[in-house]
Amino acid sequence: MPQAKKKISIPTFPKSRKVYIEGSQPDIQVPMREITLSPTPSSHGAAENQPVLVYDTSGAYTDDNIELDLHAGLPSIRQSWIEKRDDSDVLTGLSSEYGQKRQQDSKLDELRFEHIRKPRKAKKGKNVSQMHYARQGIITPEMEYVAIRENQQRHKMAEITPQHLGQSFGASTPKVITPEFVRDEVARGRAIIPVNINHPEAEPMIIGRNFLVKVNSNIGNSALGSSIEEEVEKMTWSIGWGADTVMDLSTGKNIHETREWIVRNSPVPIGTVPIYQALEKVNGVAEDLTWEIFRDTLIEQAEQGVDYFTIHAGVLLRYVPMTAKRLAGIVSRGGAIMAKWCLSHHKENFLYTHFEDICEIMKAYDVSFSLGDGLRPGSIADANDEAQLSELKTLGELTKVAWKHDVQVIIEGPGHVPMHMIKENMDKEIEQCHEAPFYTLGPLTTDIAPGYDHITSAIGAAQIGWYGCAMLCYVTPKEHLGLPDKEDVRVGVVTYKLAAHAADLAKGHPGVQYRDDALSKARFEFRWEDQFNLGLDPLRALEYHDQTLPKESAKVAHFCSMCGPKFCSMKISQEVRDYAKEHNLEDDTALDVGMQEKSDEFSDQGSAIYSEA
Amino acid sequence: MPQAKKKISIPTFPKSRKVYIEGSQPDIQVPMREITLSPTPSSHGAAENQPVLVYDTSGAYTDDNIELDLHAGLPSIRQSWIEKRDDSDVLTGLSSEYGQKRQQDSKLDELRFEHIRKPRKAKKGKNVSQMHYARQGIITPEMEYVAIRENQQRHKMAEITPQHLGQSFGASTPKVITPEFVRDEVARGRAIIPVNINHPEAEPMIIGRNFLVKVNSNIGNSALGSSIEEEVEKMTWSIGWGADTVMDLSTGKNIHETREWIVRNSPVPIGTVPIYQALEKVNGVAEDLTWEIFRDTLIEQAEQGVDYFTIHAGVLLRYVPMTAKRLAGIVSRGGAIMAKWCLSHHKENFLYTHFEDICEIMKAYDVSFSLGDGLRPGSIADANDEAQLSELKTLGELTKVAWKHDVQVIIEGPGHVPMHMIKENMDKEIEQCHEAPFYTLGPLTTDIAPGYDHITSAIGAAQIGWYGCAMLCYVTPKEHLGLPDKEDVRVGVVTYKLAAHAADLAKGHPGVQYRDDALSKARFEFRWEDQFNLGLDPLRALEYHDQTLPKESAKVAHFCSMCGPKFCSMKISQEVRDYAKEHNLEDDTALDVGMQEKSDEFSDQGSAIYSEA
Repeated sequence: MPQAKKKISIPTFPKSRKVYIEGSQPDIQVPMREITLSPTPSSHGAAENQPVLVYDTSGAYTDDNIELDLHAGLPSIRQSWIEKRDDSDVLTGLSSEYGQKRQQDSKLDELRFEHIRKPRKAKKGKNVSQMHYARQGIITPEMEYVAIRENQQRHKMAEITPQHLGQSFGASTPKVITPEFVRDEVARGRAIIPVNINHPEAEPMIIGRNFLVKVNSNIGNSALGSSIEEEVEKMTWSIGWGADTVMDLSTGKNIHETREWIVRNSPVPIGTVPIYQALEKVNGVAEDLTWEIFRDTLIEQAEQGVDYFTIHAGVLLRYVPMTAKRLAGIVSRGGAIMAKWCLSHHKENFLYTHFEDICEIMKAYDVSFSLGDGLRPGSIADANDEAQLSELKTLGELTKVAWKHDVQVIIEGPGHVPMHMIKENMDKEIEQCHEAPFYTLGPLTTDIAPGYDHITSAIGAAQIGWYGCAMLCYVTPKEHLGLPDKEDVRVGVVTYKLAAHAADLAKGHPGVQYRDDALSKARFEFRWEDQFNLGLDPLRALEYHDQTLPKESAKVAHFCSMCGPKFCSMKISQEVRDYAKEHNLEDDTALDVGMQEKSDEFSDQGSAIYSEA
Repeated sequence: MPQAKKKISIPTFPKSRKVYIEGSQPDIQVPMREITLSPTPSSHGAAENQPVLVYDTSGAYTDDNIELDLHAGLPSIRQSWIEKRDDSDVLTGLSSEYGQKRQQDSKLDELRFEHIRKPRKAKKGKNVSQMHYARQGIITPEMEYVAIRENQQRHKMAEITPQHLGQSFGASTPKVITPEFVRDEVARGRAIIPVNINHPEAEPMIIGRNFLVKVNSNIGNSALGSSIEEEVEKMTWSIGWGADTVMDLSTGKNIHETREWIVRNSPVPIGTVPIYQALEKVNGVAEDLTWEIFRDTLIEQAEQGVDYFTIHAGVLLRYVPMTAKRLAGIVSRGGAIMAKWCLSHHKENFLYTHFEDICEIMKAYDVSFSLGDGLRPGSIADANDEAQLSELKTLGELTKVAWKHDVQVIIEGPGHVPMHMIKENMDKEIEQCHEAPFYTLGPLTTDIAPGYDHITSAIGAAQIGWYGCAMLCYVTPKEHLGLPDKEDVRVGVVTYKLAAHAADLAKGHPGVQYRDDALSKARFEFRWEDQFNLGLDPLRALEYHDQTLPKESAKVAHFCSMCGPKFCSMKISQEVRDYAKEHNLEDDTALDVGMQEKSDEFSDQGSAIYSEA
């Protein structure tokens, strides 16, 4: 990273620009992406098409008016909100011993982010979590921001209105998300806003089943090695495609420094699995892990601004033997580490025994729990087994502990689960974890397609999202096979965005169908470029189109040369429509009367021929 | 095609070989693919792993003992069965006028398949459909073949037994498929065996919801043009990846000759949409279509050996105006053609009024109906609307007419449907179409992802397969954008195979989980190559693996260098397992007693800390 300023790796979409909706105060500026559309051609009735606004996770990187520099980090949009609450102090230095050691090591200077802020921490006796504010009836700017953001698809909505409203799960979502609704959902633990006070660059977002389904992307260097620069690039690339949060799963060296670069440049919440770094600190010997090392790691990361921690506190000693008979054992790295620790010490998991101590740290910075499913099934054969479901129950127990401290919680879920067993996961989670948001990895619905596990898992992810899962952790085509490259990250994120959207549609989430409708209308009217631009991956759509029909004229034709005019159902459909118009059969009455009359004789005849044959 | 013999385009998979299971007579030889596995390494207990048999659609092309030549066509494995029934005659020439004209045109000699057989037709008053035999209580060799084929996953099943049996839909599937069960399902119309007596090369397969979910792939030249050779290549390529049937949707010129090449070389049933060719015969002017031209086309194609016809007989005049208010109109080409014909003539659809005449043709060759959903929705906004559901009801009415003639029927379904509206499609189809097998195109669960519609639709396809859909028509990444190339066909077929398998798992189809289990066991034991080879696309899995870990040693390592040994959950899992073994905690009793004792103190302690917090 410490090279000269370089181009930021993020996709740019044609006819899109960043716009902002202002909240009740001028520093609440909620970003959206506006997609400009071309007019409906005269063959289809000639009309303007309003621009479409879509949810935007790409941060200031796609704002042409902001000059960005990865070496400087993003603007701190939440700084003044945090300061105004006056319940936190800027510390004189890092609290973590490890953090201090790294800071003092001059050999690391060249790796180090240049503008490290002093950390901020709750004043003694204070709790800075969004849940804490919510429970006191306070609507924070973060909550208002989130309400506007969740509503944005309803702003300037196209003339088309949603025709299908599906079932809603749990509390029904209001037609318009209000800041008060957000507050209430956060207060009762049914949604979280993961925003560490040390990550003021984050654009607030919400995870909960009465909001849009979110997508998490994973980055992280590993034993195979990748540079800090590559990791930051993977983050900007992920959010450019629509990732709502990013987990940094780094396990290599210099992960402290890498993390600083990532957090300072990330407009989305960053999650980590602190046990990975703790294990590095004991040279990979799980048995040598201690609460003290782990605790220092939590503080180190909390002061850097990590927004949520995956903590495998539900891997209890007595559950570990339940995995011995499994086909695929334990597949969670964190789960395996803790299982090994428990077994070799014959002691209960220290994350469990120290859970309240962890809560104290979480609430001093507003770090949210992502309670890890260390015993999730790693194969279809192991789905919903005793180990998995026992752990889930424990996670529910811990949720209540965290809520006692007003600490925000999401619950991690599987994994590998065949379709007919997915709903049980969601139902049990809602019941046993008291409606805390669920956050699942897929689940993969079959084990037989390595190379296509983004798809085996998108099938499960769409379903569990429909059933009420709040966030979906993406899976790339490389799952089980190798490390994802940029193309894999793109495919993984887009696949999960479409799964999340399919879930939103099925939930009947208000105002999400307008994008499908706008795209289908463009498709029907042969507005090819609008069709591409309204999609989740306009660049891929254009590329595929041009492989068959490269000519510019093919993007304005009122039929396409794939089928030709004779076989173009869209063209014929328009003729049917024109015919109906011409013969005044357009409105319902005319249809019923005019057309029905003309066809009745035939239908009568037809019915006579075949009825009750 | 009329070039020198060339290499056949079909993927070959490592460690796979063709094997056959013999039926009750020596000419019933049911093909399977046997995948050889390596032994479990000593670190995991050292054991042999039995070879795994999988369903095989690739025909003789993957049999190393058979020398094939596309110019000669495939062996006629069903010839003697058809002859023995003695209910059909070999005609002296083609019955169709158009077919005769093409045959006499010497300009077409160079395009023509060299070994065209004389067509076969039922003797006067006879019915050669499998349904007809079934209803008379006759178990045909085709039925026995199918029974063995559906069972094959249960032959030599790995030692692992399925742990999860899901719900079954409708009649429960027996643990072992018997020829009598096949006969009964065909007799009652709940399954079809699409095998034209003029396609003796076809390896019998069955489509019905109490059998494995099947996948159809589409090929076909178009206005953009592609050669006969390319179309045959697309067919062999499709079946190599696992397509169970192939539809030839050609609309260009020379489709008569192209079809002959395809049918003669296809071991899977071939479907067509005869109205496409009929429209070509009237130069693309839908209004000029007549029953006579259509009838001649049916006979022409039936005598070539097409196994099923998509016929849009449910597009009734009175339904057409219902589409005028749709967002995306009519998206089925056949539906649009018939709608235009109906409207412009103000007459009822001739496919409907002549439906019994069509049945007479179908039963003379055993062509199955695929009753087309000409009014399927082409956007989320149009899902399950009046036009679609009205047509479905008519298709149910026509099903009864066809069954009166003992003609086999499947019903085509959508299209674009959000997840929460999919089940209604299946339930209505079962009820209104009297349990005739359902055959859907996806459905796509959102419209916003052009370029990824194989995935938006695989989500819907897996679901509807689980609900009872018998066959899934694949969608490629190029859907809505361009014509699929070979890579798109591969991705489309594999995506649908995994969706179909996910559905089979969720239905609790007996004996399908063994492949997931065998693959997961290989994964857990770091038998990398076995993991690849047991997957649906071994070549892609290997390719992805080698992108990250190209060294040969990486395919035998007992952890992989992605996570490294410290973070390898599989490796740690094995240590947990070894520990359990060492301490005699393996069997249930030991676990319960030994481990429980050791952990009780901690769990007690833990429970005391957090219970009812």
